[in-house]
Amino acid sequence: MPFNESQFESVCSTARQAAIFQSAADALEWDERTGMPLAAGGYRAQQVSTLRSSAHQLRTDDVYGDALQTLLDQIGDLDPHSDQAATVRGLHRDFVRDKKLPIDLVTRLSVATVRGQQVWDDARKRDSFDAFQPALDEIIRLKRDAGARMAEGTSHSVYEALLDEYEPDAQVDQLNPVFSELKQQLSELIVAVTDSPQQPNITPLQRDFAISSQREFSRNVAGWVGFDFARGRLDETSHPFCTTLGPNDCRILTRYESNWLPSGLFGTLHEAGHGMYEQGLRSDWFGLPPGNFVSLGIHESQSRLWENQVGRSRPFWEWLYPKAVGAFPEQLSSTELDEFYFAINQVRPSLIRVEADEATYNLHILIRFELEQALINDELSTSDLPDAWNRQYKECLGITPPSNADGVLQDVHWSAGLFGYFPTYTLGNLAAAQLFDAASDALGNLDTMLSRGEFAPLLEWLRDNVHRHGRCYSGSELVENATGSPLSSTHLMRYLENKLRPLYGI
Amino acid sequence: MPFNESQFESVCSTARQAAIFQSAADALEWDERTGMPLAAGGYRAQQVSTLRSSAHQLRTDDVYGDALQTLLDQIGDLDPHSDQAATVRGLHRDFVRDKKLPIDLVTRLSVATVRGQQVWDDARKRDSFDAFQPALDEIIRLKRDAGARMAEGTSHSVYEALLDEYEPDAQVDQLNPVFSELKQQLSELIVAVTDSPQQPNITPLQRDFAISSQREFSRNVAGWVGFDFARGRLDETSHPFCTTLGPNDCRILTRYESNWLPSGLFGTLHEAGHGMYEQGLRSDWFGLPPGNFVSLGIHESQSRLWENQVGRSRPFWEWLYPKAVGAFPEQLSSTELDEFYFAINQVRPSLIRVEADEATYNLHILIRFELEQALINDELSTSDLPDAWNRQYKECLGITPPSNADGVLQDVHWSAGLFGYFPTYTLGNLAAAQLFDAASDALGNLDTMLSRGEFAPLLEWLRDNVHRHGRCYSGSELVENATGSPLSSTHLMRYLENKLRPLYGI
Repeated sequence: MPFNESQFESVCSTARQAAIFQSAADALEWDERTGMPLAAGGYRAQQVSTLRSSAHQLRTDDVYGDALQTLLDQIGDLDPHSDQAATVRGLHRDFVRDKKLPIDLVTRLSVATVRGQQVWDDARKRDSFDAFQPALDEIIRLKRDAGARMAEGTSHSVYEALLDEYEPDAQVDQLNPVFSELKQQLSELIVAVTDSPQQPNITPLQRDFAISSQREFSRNVAGWVGFDFARGRLDETSHPFCTTLGPNDCRILTRYESNWLPSGLFGTLHEAGHGMYEQGLRSDWFGLPPGNFVSLGIHESQSRLWENQVGRSRPFWEWLYPKAVGAFPEQLSSTELDEFYFAINQVRPSLIRVEADEATYNLHILIRFELEQALINDELSTSDLPDAWNRQYKECLGITPPSNADGVLQDVHWSAGLFGYFPTYTLGNLAAAQLFDAASDALGNLDTMLSRGEFAPLLEWLRDNVHRHGRCYSGSELVENATGSPLSSTHLMRYLENKLRPLYGI
Repeated sequence: MPFNESQFESVCSTARQAAIFQSAADALEWDERTGMPLAAGGYRAQQVSTLRSSAHQLRTDDVYGDALQTLLDQIGDLDPHSDQAATVRGLHRDFVRDKKLPIDLVTRLSVATVRGQQVWDDARKRDSFDAFQPALDEIIRLKRDAGARMAEGTSHSVYEALLDEYEPDAQVDQLNPVFSELKQQLSELIVAVTDSPQQPNITPLQRDFAISSQREFSRNVAGWVGFDFARGRLDETSHPFCTTLGPNDCRILTRYESNWLPSGLFGTLHEAGHGMYEQGLRSDWFGLPPGNFVSLGIHESQSRLWENQVGRSRPFWEWLYPKAVGAFPEQLSSTELDEFYFAINQVRPSLIRVEADEATYNLHILIRFELEQALINDELSTSDLPDAWNRQYKECLGITPPSNADGVLQDVHWSAGLFGYFPTYTLGNLAAAQLFDAASDALGNLDTMLSRGEFAPLLEWLRDNVHRHGRCYSGSELVENATGSPLSSTHLMRYLENKLRPLYGI
């Protein structure tokens, strides 16, 4: 059947209209998290939910769905990775997912997770898992229901259907071997690092760094690596993130600590990495699959690549360190580059995921990945969860949380219903290392470029191989196309080994 | 007929829904003017117009309009100033106005004014009235058409129908005598002031005031007079304004100049006055007439009262000046309070309205009021406008603009289609003086309060007499209820005479 162009335009127009409501809601949420007056929260929630409902209505309209179904039958003759085919496939996939969830379940989930986050927040403060457990049980029950509905008519398991929302097409069977190999190898490396007598001196990072100077320096760094301030902003918030309010309007947010330089600096690099992905998407396809990021894992790969593979590399600091000393002469001029470089690459098992270094970080994730699968598959009851958590931390990281607040209660994700979200962090780390290696191979002298502050070739390579494709390829296809092999733990492990063994003399 | 409560709830619900879209658009516009990335403008315009259309659709829906018409017939038994009666009357009025304008005309006006502002901006830069004239002609033609349609079935003239959008129920026949008396008296006072050998020394205001210190001081002043930062924010922009994004979310914006203290400080007081009016509206009626401001003139009265009657008064500075010297010791400690007080009350005919002092300001307005009536009534052609402008400036202010850029092209209003808007500024000044006098009478020792930094009683009086009534009374009813007499020029003239004659020794 020939491809019906005018029907295609019509579904695109509906999807773009929905994106207008959606991005307006995103703008209100950005504002909410950058300084909205406290008392405005109630009405702001009404505004956001009205806008999201307007988008949802457009996206679940039956006429629109029928048109997508008709077009889906017509894309057989097109290149499956063309913009048109990807648009029809992507919008149809989203339509089918959205339709599978009855509005009643969506509402109950929304209520349960809003309430869940309040209960979690309070339970964490009181260090009481018992106070959180009933809310968590309810959320798991509802997420299982949602997952089962979304899995219907697909080859997905219930957990995969949940994961699919963040990492489309990811399969647990393929992730498990990669993740368990990573876990094994990482644990060995971390033991060696921990046992080494050679340890960094991190006190230079803990000096008094005036927030205003950090702000200026971080903004410069974001601009230098390639974040485009004509199409974006850098602001501050308590929980940093990146959001896009329009095709030329990417907002990144960071957080500064006066006695810990890495927080603001690497936070900025991380969010700038997210931001440059968003800015590399094709703006004329904004709100449609070719102009949307493909998955959270790929998104995270971009942030981690700039934060770690670039931002914690020696060549990068050969170039940046003199500027850093210029920005913070009192704090840094007595510290040598090598000492600074070792300090920003400290690896040390710790309790809190969001504060973890790049090596131990993945163990935090793998623990959560196993536990949340067990919870959703009903192989672990929430009453056994704190013990299971502490056992895993002892086994993988060699430490036992002294409290549930610093253990099983530390993350907001489960209380927000985000099951299947955690693994995307580690997928991102794996992809970052693998993509960086491929870029190095392609560009030949990437280290030299970084040591001269030349970031454009790397950014260009990422644009060509990742950004500009939007959702035209799946995340795993993108990685395989760009690097020549499927996602594996090889590159991340080699990267960490190559960096950490010389530093720690192991 | 008994009042149908459930039908009333239903129209309120629609109007509240429309207000959600409208306030979301306001939030996006606030963001646009406080730091949105430059390149985001195009998409932002699409977002705003989509949200405003969604609101417009709800507000012009026929079922909604029929319900309002039915309710209008039922409010006869209610107190006409009750919340319910005011809601029905106000929403019905808005519905009828909105319906009178065909969507085609609205679109043409929107295109003509967006384009008009671009053309104006360019023409002003090139000092070429000729370049602007065709765009202005088109806007006048469309506004006449809109005014004629809105006047249909009412006692309004075309100009009044335009004015009615900003100052509901204002009548030119009632304004004209008040305004011409004011013009006469003001001109005499200004001549006396100008001729006086006693003149202020304004150099203390022109010293180097660091923006960061101004920012802190202005924020403090806004908070001290009563702007509630738990329900609002103070930000910066190139053209200061005040906007409300929700019942507890009022945003005021100011602008600082490093070599002119009054700009940021009185700008903040002015916007804080607007903001305190918004914060004094009843938040449970947000988006409905009882929770909306009544008119631009009354809005302006609140900003001018805090900027001038309070902010440029001697009692206020008896209290604030030591704090100002504390905030700017290098710049102010060599200046006596009396010298400072005279400087901030300088009166001097000048070319630019937005930089004018509180006495000459009204002459700028009255000139525009006469000219725009003549334009709309087809008694003045745009080709004669620059000469007419310059003649009036010579006559009223004794000065002749050296260029159209500093003359007839200085304001954005006409290019934006804002005919009928200017007089609200002077109405605001008249009402500010009259309300302040009434508050003084009621509170007994207002000057003493101000000299002690006690602003709560004055704010409370304004809340009781103006803010909390929303649109339950008309602007002129509010003034008359609060002050015991209709709006006149008496209070403003007496206020100016009492202040300026001693200062200038006349």
